[in-house]
Amino acid sequence: MMDMIREDIGLMDVTTVGLGIGDLDAKITFAPKRPVVLCGAEIVETMCKEMHLSVKRFCKSGDFVEANTLILEAYGSAAQVHQVWKVCQNILEYLCGIATKTSEMLTQARLYNPNIELLTTRKIFPRTKELALQAVYAGGGAHHRLGLYDSILVFKQHRVFFDDKASFEAQFRKMKQQFLEKKIVVEVENADEALYFARLGADILQCEKMTPEEFSACVASVRREVPSVFFSATGGVNEKNIGEYAQAGADCIVTSSPYHAKPADIRVIIEKC
Amino acid sequence: MMDMIREDIGLMDVTTVGLGIGDLDAKITFAPKRPVVLCGAEIVETMCKEMHLSVKRFCKSGDFVEANTLILEAYGSAAQVHQVWKVCQNILEYLCGIATKTSEMLTQARLYNPNIELLTTRKIFPRTKELALQAVYAGGGAHHRLGLYDSILVFKQHRVFFDDKASFEAQFRKMKQQFLEKKIVVEVENADEALYFARLGADILQCEKMTPEEFSACVASVRREVPSVFFSATGGVNEKNIGEYAQAGADCIVTSSPYHAKPADIRVIIEKC
Amino acid sequence: MMDMIREDIGLMDVTTVGLGIGDLDAKITFAPKRPVVLCGAEIVETMCKEMHLSVKRFCKSGDFVEANTLILEAYGSAAQVHQVWKVCQNILEYLCGIATKTSEMLTQARLYNPNIELLTTRKIFPRTKELALQAVYAGGGAHHRLGLYDSILVFKQHRVFFDDKASFEAQFRKMKQQFLEKKIVVEVENADEALYFARLGADILQCEKMTPEEFSACVASVRREVPSVFFSATGGVNEKNIGEYAQAGADCIVTSSPYHAKPADIRVIIEKC
Amino acid sequence: MMDMIREDIGLMDVTTVGLGIGDLDAKITFAPKRPVVLCGAEIVETMCKEMHLSVKRFCKSGDFVEANTLILEAYGSAAQVHQVWKVCQNILEYLCGIATKTSEMLTQARLYNPNIELLTTRKIFPRTKELALQAVYAGGGAHHRLGLYDSILVFKQHRVFFDDKASFEAQFRKMKQQFLEKKIVVEVENADEALYFARLGADILQCEKMTPEEFSACVASVRREVPSVFFSATGGVNEKNIGEYAQAGADCIVTSSPYHAKPADIRVIIEKC
Amino acid sequence: MMDMIREDIGLMDVTTVGLGIGDLDAKITFAPKRPVVLCGAEIVETMCKEMHLSVKRFCKSGDFVEANTLILEAYGSAAQVHQVWKVCQNILEYLCGIATKTSEMLTQARLYNPNIELLTTRKIFPRTKELALQAVYAGGGAHHRLGLYDSILVFKQHRVFFDDKASFEAQFRKMKQQFLEKKIVVEVENADEALYFARLGADILQCEKMTPEEFSACVASVRREVPSVFFSATGGVNEKNIGEYAQAGADCIVTSSPYHAKPADIRVIIEKC
Amino acid sequence: MMDMIREDIGLMDVTTVGLGIGDLDAKITFAPKRPVVLCGAEIVETMCKEMHLSVKRFCKSGDFVEANTLILEAYGSAAQVHQVWKVCQNILEYLCGIATKTSEMLTQARLYNPNIELLTTRKIFPRTKELALQAVYAGGGAHHRLGLYDSILVFKQHRVFFDDKASFEAQFRKMKQQFLEKKIVVEVENADEALYFARLGADILQCEKMTPEEFSACVASVRREVPSVFFSATGGVNEKNIGEYAQAGADCIVTSSPYHAKPADIRVIIEKC
Repeated sequence: MMDMIREDIGLMDVTTVGLGIGDLDAKITFAPKRPVVLCGAEIVETMCKEMHLSVKRFCKSGDFVEANTLILEAYGSAAQVHQVWKVCQNILEYLCGIATKTSEMLTQARLYNPNIELLTTRKIFPRTKELALQAVYAGGGAHHRLGLYDSILVFKQHRVFFDDKASFEAQFRKMKQQFLEKKIVVEVENADEALYFARLGADILQCEKMTPEEFSACVASVRREVPSVFFSATGGVNEKNIGEYAQAGADCIVTSSPYHAKPADIRVIIEKC
Repeated sequence: MMDMIREDIGLMDVTTVGLGIGDLDAKITFAPKRPVVLCGAEIVETMCKEMHLSVKRFCKSGDFVEANTLILEAYGSAAQVHQVWKVCQNILEYLCGIATKTSEMLTQARLYNPNIELLTTRKIFPRTKELALQAVYAGGGAHHRLGLYDSILVFKQHRVFFDDKASFEAQFRKMKQQFLEKKIVVEVENADEALYFARLGADILQCEKMTPEEFSACVASVRREVPSVFFSATGGVNEKNIGEYAQAGADCIVTSSPYHAKPADIRVIIEKC
Repeated sequence: MMDMIREDIGLMDVTTVGLGIGDLDAKITFAPKRPVVLCGAEIVETMCKEMHLSVKRFCKSGDFVEANTLILEAYGSAAQVHQVWKVCQNILEYLCGIATKTSEMLTQARLYNPNIELLTTRKIFPRTKELALQAVYAGGGAHHRLGLYDSILVFKQHRVFFDDKASFEAQFRKMKQQFLEKKIVVEVENADEALYFARLGADILQCEKMTPEEFSACVASVRREVPSVFFSATGGVNEKNIGEYAQAGADCIVTSSPYHAKPADIRVIIEKC
Repeated sequence: MMDMIREDIGLMDVTTVGLGIGDLDAKITFAPKRPVVLCGAEIVETMCKEMHLSVKRFCKSGDFVEANTLILEAYGSAAQVHQVWKVCQNILEYLCGIATKTSEMLTQARLYNPNIELLTTRKIFPRTKELALQAVYAGGGAHHRLGLYDSILVFKQHRVFFDDKASFEAQFRKMKQQFLEKKIVVEVENADEALYFARLGADILQCEKMTPEEFSACVASVRREVPSVFFSATGGVNEKNIGEYAQAGADCIVTSSPYHAKPADIRVIIEKC
Repeated sequence: MMDMIREDIGLMDVTTVGLGIGDLDAKITFAPKRPVVLCGAEIVETMCKEMHLSVKRFCKSGDFVEANTLILEAYGSAAQVHQVWKVCQNILEYLCGIATKTSEMLTQARLYNPNIELLTTRKIFPRTKELALQAVYAGGGAHHRLGLYDSILVFKQHRVFFDDKASFEAQFRKMKQQFLEKKIVVEVENADEALYFARLGADILQCEKMTPEEFSACVASVRREVPSVFFSATGGVNEKNIGEYAQAGADCIVTSSPYHAKPADIRVIIEKC
Repeated sequence: MMDMIREDIGLMDVTTVGLGIGDLDAKITFAPKRPVVLCGAEIVETMCKEMHLSVKRFCKSGDFVEANTLILEAYGSAAQVHQVWKVCQNILEYLCGIATKTSEMLTQARLYNPNIELLTTRKIFPRTKELALQAVYAGGGAHHRLGLYDSILVFKQHRVFFDDKASFEAQFRKMKQQFLEKKIVVEVENADEALYFARLGADILQCEKMTPEEFSACVASVRREVPSVFFSATGGVNEKNIGEYAQAGADCIVTSSPYHAKPADIRVIIEKC
C-alpha cells in the first residue's frame, strides 16, 4: 500500500504546507459520476486507515453502483486528506474501469453462451498485476494465468526447440505425467494444429487469432474426434466481437482487453469540517 | 527491474521445465508490427543483462521506428529467453503506445502553436509512474507534476479550508514568498477565477474543463491585464480536440490521455540457435 | 541473494578485521564429503560473483557428485572469501541434503512404479520455499503446489462452510467451470469420500493418511467406476514406506519429507594464494 | 511478517474464491498433538492481527504445553482463516520442533553439568535465522554467534593467511587489544592447539570434533596451566552424546543439531461460526 | 520506521534477555536538558506505537520547548522500552539539534530582513534526507531542492558541455519554455555572470561564495536592470555571517549549515511501574 | 547503494534533461581541498559502477590524502555524471570528515597512552550507521557496540527493574554464565559503583561523565583490588579533553564525537571529453 502513497506524495505535500492548512479537520468523499461495477473500495479503505484517517465504506468490490452513490467517506486532517486524495481516486478510477469493462464483455458473451468464462492474460502493464487482478474478479472474470509459474501453456515458441516431432511428442507426454496435477494448455493457430494437439493429449486448445468462422470450424472438427477437450479463443477479442466467439463454441475467452478500459470518472469532494 | 521479472516469473517457468528445453541456446528479437515512437528499449536491454542474456540494441527511446525494424536482439538459454519474453514485450508495447500517442497529440497541437508543450498528470495507474514518465518524454512531452512533492498547485479543494478571502490571500502571498523558488499554479474553472488569481500573483492558470471557446475568451481577458501569466488547458483534452486548445492560446496542455494509449503491437520471435 | 549474505555478515566481519588479513589473496573450494545429488552450486556461483569473487563451477544442480569432487572454486581477497564461506556452505549443505533425499525416495518408489512422481508440499519452514524448491527439482521431484495461488485443493476445512450437500455440489461444479484451465484436487480420508468426489468430478484424489492397504483398496474401488481419476498418497509417507505406496497404485506421492533431510557435509578449504 | 504470508498466498487463494465461501464467519484453533516446548505463538498472534483476524493466545513461547492444549484461537472470515492457516501452522510446527529439541538436549546435558549452556551455530538454512533464534531461546538455549558481526572466532581458515607464528601472535595480541570489549574464541582440533591458544590469551577454546575422551583430556591438561579459560565442545554433538560432553567438562555446547529437529505436529481446526 | 528500529536492535537485545527483566512493566520519558525547537516527537510517537507501547505526546514539532519539559511518555514492557530507548533518543537529539539551529539562524537573519527565507541544500548525509527535512521545517526553514528531480538549477558543471554561447543560450530558452511550470535557478560566481543570466531569463540567481560586500554589489547592479529577479546567497553561510547576507539583500539563504548542528541533549528516564 | 542514488535523483534529473546534454561524454574527478584521512572512495567506486560509469580509483579508505590529490575519476555520459555527482561528493565529504576526526582524536589520545582505543557509540543519526562505521574504522577507531544485539552493557536503566540487590546479583551471575562467550560491560557513575561491579564480575567498567580526575581516582582504587578489569571513559569526551582521559588510565574511549565532525571539503570537477 505505502509504496503507492509514497509514489504520489514523496517527501512532502508542498502546497498544503505552503497554505498552512494541514492541521484543520477535513472530510473526503468518493462517488462515481456514471454507473460502475465497483472495485478498489477495500484498498482505498485500507490505505486511508494506514494513513490514520477514519473511514466508512458503503459498497464493496463487485457491487453495481449507480451514479452519484457514495462509495466511501473518510475523516482526518486536511494534510491527510490531501495526501490520500489522488492516489485513492486513481485506484478507484482505474479499477472500476477494468471491472466495468470486464462485466460488460462477459454479459455480452453470455447472451450467446451462459457458461462461458472471461479470463485475462499476462499482457499487462508491469507492476499493475496485483491491482488489475482484483478488478477482473470484481467484474466477474477470472485469470488465465498469473505468470509463468502457475500453469502450463505450450507455445510455438517452445516447440522451435525440438528437432523432430518424435522427440517433442515424447517430452510432451513426459511433461503431462510429471505435472499430472496440472492441465496442459496449447496455443494453436489452425484446425490442423488443434487436432494434432488434441490427439497428443492437450486438455485445452487456445486458438490464437482465428476468425469466429475459423474458430467454429476448428471446434467442430476437433470435438468430433476428441470430445473432452476445451477451447479458448484469444487474440483480438474485444467488446465488439466477443459475442461471435461465444456463439462459435468457446468455453472461455482469453483476453487483455479489460486492462485497457477507459478509467471510470470518480467525483471527489473535500470539505472542511 | 527485478520486481517486474519476478511479477511475471514467480518461482519458476513450469512449461519450460516441463518441456526440458531450458539449457538449449536461444535467440529472441523484438520488432514493431506498425510504426512507433520507441520507448522501453533501454529498459529491456538492462533487464536482459540482469537476467544474464547477451543483448544488442539497435534503436533508442524517442526514435521513430518503422514497422518490422529490429529494435533489439538477445541471446541466452531457452530458459532465460522464455523468462524475459513477455515482460519485455509488455514494456515495449505499453511504453511505445504511450510514446506514440504523446507524439501524435503534440504534433497535432503544434500545427496550431509550434511552442506548445504537452504535460502529463498524476492521474496514473498506481505503480506505473516511473515507466510511463519515460514514455511521455520519449514522445516529446514532459511531466506536469511528479507528485505532491515537486510543485505547488492550488485547487478548490485547498481553498475550502479558508473562512474568508482575506485570510486566503494573506496565506497565498506568504506561500509565494516562502517558496519563492517555485512557480505558483492555480486551477481555475472560469474567467473570473482566472483574473482573480492572476491579480493575486499566480504564475500559471490551469483552466479546468473549459471549452476551447471559453478558454480562448479567458486567456484574452486575463492577458489584457496580466500579460506575464501562463495558461494551461486541462480536463477532457484528447487527440481530437487538442488542436483547438492550442489554437485557443494555451501555453501548455495538461492531460492524462497518453496513459490510456492502446499498447503497440510488438512482434517477438524466438529461435533455437 | 544479498539478503542471505547480509543475514550472516551484518555490518562487518570482526575477526577478519581484527586479524588484519582482509586484503590478502585467497582461494576457497567446496567439495562434498560423501556422494550427493547436487543443488545450490549455481546460487553459490552467483553469490560469489555478486560479492566480486572470480569463480569456476565444475558441476551443476541435478548432478550426482562423488565424495571429494570439486564443485566450485572461487578467488578473491581473504575478506571476500570469509564473507561468502559459511553462507555458501550452508546453501550447499541444506540443498544437497534435500536433493539427495528427494532422489533416494524417488528411486525407492520407482522400483515399484517407474512412472510415479514425488511432489513436495507447502509444509515448509517459512522463507525457505525459493531455495528448497530448487533442491526438490534437482533431486528429480516436482512441486505439489507453490502456495494457495497456483492450484485448487479442496480440504475438509473448506467443506465445513457448506450447510448441505446440494449447495456444496452446486458450488463445486461452478468452480470446476470457472477454473476450467485447472484440475480439481480433493483431499479425502477414506474410500467413500474418494468415490463421492470422483463421481462429483474431482480430477485428483489426494488420499490423506491411509495405510498402504487402505490406499490400495480405495484406488481399486474408485478406478472401477471412474477410471480417469488420479490418486496421490500423502501424510506420513517417508523413505521407509514410500515403496509400499508406489506399489499400492499411487500416481504420485505428496510429501514434505525431503525438507527435513539431514544437511549434506560439504568440505570447505580456504587457502592463501 | 507479511513476506511469509505472501510467500504462501501469492496473489490469491484460488480454492476459497472458487468455492465462494470467503465472506462467511470462521474460527481457527491450534493445539499440539503431542507435548511441546512452545515457540511461535506470539508470531502467529501478530500475523493474525496483521491479517485483521481477532485472536486470543493462551500460552507463550517457552511454555511446556501438553498435548491437545489450546495454544491460540482466531476469528475472521473464511478467506482470512484460510490465508493464515498453513503459514501459522508451519511456524508453530517448525519452531516448536526446534524449541522442544533444544530443551531436551539441554535437560540431558544438565544431568551431568547443571551449569552447562547450549549455544546454536551459524550453520542454518539461509533466511531462517530470525525465527530459529527465537525457538532456541524458547527451549532454554542461546546463540553462539549471530553472524560474522557480533563475535570474534578464529579458525584455522584465518590462520592460513599468516606466514609465520610470530606475525600471527603479534596480530592476535593486537586484535585482543583493539577489541578489548570482546572475548576471543578460537577453534582448536587437539590438546596441543588448545594449550597454545590458552597461553596466547584466548578466552574460550572451541574444541572441534574431539571425542568426549579427547575433549576431557584436553580440558584437564589446559586447565592445569590456564585455569581461567572456558571450553566449548562442537562438531557432531547431538541428543545422544551431549551428556558425555557435559560430563567431560564442557562449559558450553555449540551445536546446530536443534535446527534439524523434526517439526512438531500441530492440529488445526477450522469451523464455521 | 522499522528500518531504524532494526538498525539498532538487530535480532535481539542481549542485555535485557540476559537480565531476565523483559516482561516487567516499564515507563520511559523524554525531556530536553536545555531549551529546544522540537522536532521528531511525532516520529517517536509512531515508532512507539509500532512497537506496541502506549504513548502520550505533550508537544509537537515546531514548538519551542523549555528545559526539562516532558515531551512524551510511553508505557510497555521493559523489553519494549529498552528496544525503543536509544533510537527514539537519537531521533529527538539529532532533529531537535537541526530544528533549533535552523530557527536560530533564521531569527538572526530576520533581524535584518524580516522576509528572508532559509532553504537547506542537497549536501546531506546520505539516507538522512527524510528526517532532516522535517527538522528544517520545524525550525521555520524550507527546502532548496529535494533532489535532482524537483527543480532546475544550472551549474557551471552543466555549461561546460556547450561549445559556444549561442548554442547554450538557445537551449536555455528551450528549457525555459519546456519547463514553463518551473522557475529557472542559476548558480553564479560574480556580478558579471549574474547580469548575464538575469538578461537571459533566469528567475533566481544563486550567488556562490561571494562575500557579503560582493553579494550586495551584485544584487544592486543586476536589480537596476532586471528588477524582477530573485537572489539567494550560498556557500559558507553560517550562524555568524547570516545576518550580513540578509542585510546585503538576499531573498533567501541556501545553506547546509543546520545539518551539522550539535545534537540536542535529551534526558531519558526509564522506570519500573 | 541504489537507495542513496534514488534519494537524490528521484525520477529524473530535470536540469540535464532540460539542457539536452545528457548524451555527451563526460568526466568527473574528486579531490580533497585540504588533507584528509580518506573514507568512502570504495563506496563511490561501486556506486559509479552500478550507474554504469567507468571508474579509476587512486586511493583507499584509511589513506592519508594530501590536498588536491586525485581520489577517483569516472567517465560516462553527462547524464550519468550529473546523477552521481552530489551523492558521491556527499559520501566523501561526510565520511572523510568522520575518519579525519577519528584519526585526530586517536592521535591525540595516543600521545599519552599508545595502546588506547577509540570506540564509537550507538548515538548516531538513524540510518547512517553502515556508512559511519566504515569511517570510524578508516580513521583507526573501532565500534563500541553495533546495537543491542552484539554486546552486553548494563545500565542504571536496567537495574531499576530489580527490587533488591540480592536478586540483581543473582541474575547478573546467571547472565554472566549464560553469555559466557561475551564480556560484561557495566556503565558506572562513580568509584563506589565501579568497585561494586568489579567485585561482582564485570569485565569492563564504562565510566560515564567522570572528570579526568574522578576517572583517574576511580581506576586507581578499583585496580588495586581487581587488577584484571578494563576501564572506558565515556560522556563528554572530545578532541580537547581526550588526552586527559588517556592520561587518566582509560583502556578505551567510548564516544560519539567523530559522528559530528565537520564534513571535509571535496572538490568536484566535471568536464566534457
